[in-house]
Amino acid sequence: MSVYERLQQLRLTLPDLAPTHEFLRVNVIDDLAFVSGHAPFEGGQFCYRGRIGREFDLLAGRRAAENALLGCLASLESSIESLDFVRQIVKLNGYVNCVPEFQDLPQVTDAASKLLINLFGDSGRHARTTIGVASLPMGVAVEIELIASLRMPSKRS
Amino acid sequence: MSVYERLQQLRLTLPDLAPTHEFLRVNVIDDLAFVSGHAPFEGGQFCYRGRIGREFDLLAGRRAAENALLGCLASLESSIESLDFVRQIVKLNGYVNCVPEFQDLPQVTDAASKLLINLFGDSGRHARTTIGVASLPMGVAVEIELIASLRMPSKRS
Amino acid sequence: MSVYERLQQLRLTLPDLAPTHEFLRVNVIDDLAFVSGHAPFEGGQFCYRGRIGREFDLLAGRRAAENALLGCLASLESSIESLDFVRQIVKLNGYVNCVPEFQDLPQVTDAASKLLINLFGDSGRHARTTIGVASLPMGVAVEIELIASLRMPSKRS
Repeated sequence: MSVYERLQQLRLTLPDLAPTHEFLRVNVIDDLAFVSGHAPFEGGQFCYRGRIGREFDLLAGRRAAENALLGCLASLESSIESLDFVRQIVKLNGYVNCVPEFQDLPQVTDAASKLLINLFGDSGRHARTTIGVASLPMGVAVEIELIASLRMPSKRS
Repeated sequence: MSVYERLQQLRLTLPDLAPTHEFLRVNVIDDLAFVSGHAPFEGGQFCYRGRIGREFDLLAGRRAAENALLGCLASLESSIESLDFVRQIVKLNGYVNCVPEFQDLPQVTDAASKLLINLFGDSGRHARTTIGVASLPMGVAVEIELIASLRMPSKRS
Repeated sequence: MSVYERLQQLRLTLPDLAPTHEFLRVNVIDDLAFVSGHAPFEGGQFCYRGRIGREFDLLAGRRAAENALLGCLASLESSIESLDFVRQIVKLNGYVNCVPEFQDLPQVTDAASKLLINLFGDSGRHARTTIGVASLPMGVAVEIELIASLRMPSKRS
């Protein structure tokens, strides 16, 4: 089943692209796509603005991670034309904006990792690093970035 | 001298693999191995749980960094069969869970970097980034991740 | 116009190399150069030591980001001989040492991104991740790291 069939099955759609700053959403070099850190974004604005362990609980953090991941995939599609060109998700970095006492960081990022595996099957399995941060752009709760390996070298992002 | 002879000389053994979440310990793409962020782990549980500058001092932080690095190498060996296939350690990222006043972050990560050079010789020399984080998975003091370049492309992690 | 003509036009010079710890300033593997995290450095010492939102404001943070970026480029030049060998800036990571309430993180890193585009033109456009950290080496306000793709494989860093 293709990633687009999976998205349909899970009743998910790729979100609109968030506004960006002085950088590319995705940069493709040879067969590697570097996807910039993405914040949760919905209905034209950044969302899940707050800290896990204060404004948000674990469950909300997981939803923020899924949201940010879908933003990564929307940007990736806009750069390489189709997610069918993804050969393998190589690496996911999850940045969790949480109070210092919060330790269940992997459970937050797991939501994004699980969604990747649901969408891409074995091609969605990836290495990962999760850390807790002091602050994130726009004060959002989670930021997700990816490296993906592509089936065919794209020329530009 | 091979990395295994060095390990023996230093009376070090690669630790057991820590339990993982929804991600691969190592993901090999072409000739690059992406080693996920590893926390210190010993005797079946995560250790060095606490913050440098509060529960732990610099020396304990250095031991935590060495411990996490050995976990990276154990995972790498389990993925590529033998550490003899390592051509070069490319990059090390060190995440240090410390109080905001603590500034000797490079001295923490240096312990992992030195151990890499001791084990791999010039092939262990690497680029590096060290940052202080607000929190880490399970509240550990240090997390280490690696990128390694391999002698021969492995098929899968 | 070459990057060196741009530097001259902007009346910028590449700074002296900062002292390093147990790691390489730059590690070149095949055609990718991994530039280690760089702190602002000037006149023989690390500078911009403090936190954005406390010791420093946004504008100072932007200057710190530019300073750290120029350090990255000085190290890159010392490793690959000439910045003319840069094919594309692939990725920039910006680590911002700020109070938890500070949310204008992208505006800090933008200064480094803009300078890259000013210097390299389209070859300077890159993917990017910006996060807020709890602490940085020597307590500096900003740390910048890069991945660059090179025109010709260099042998060693």
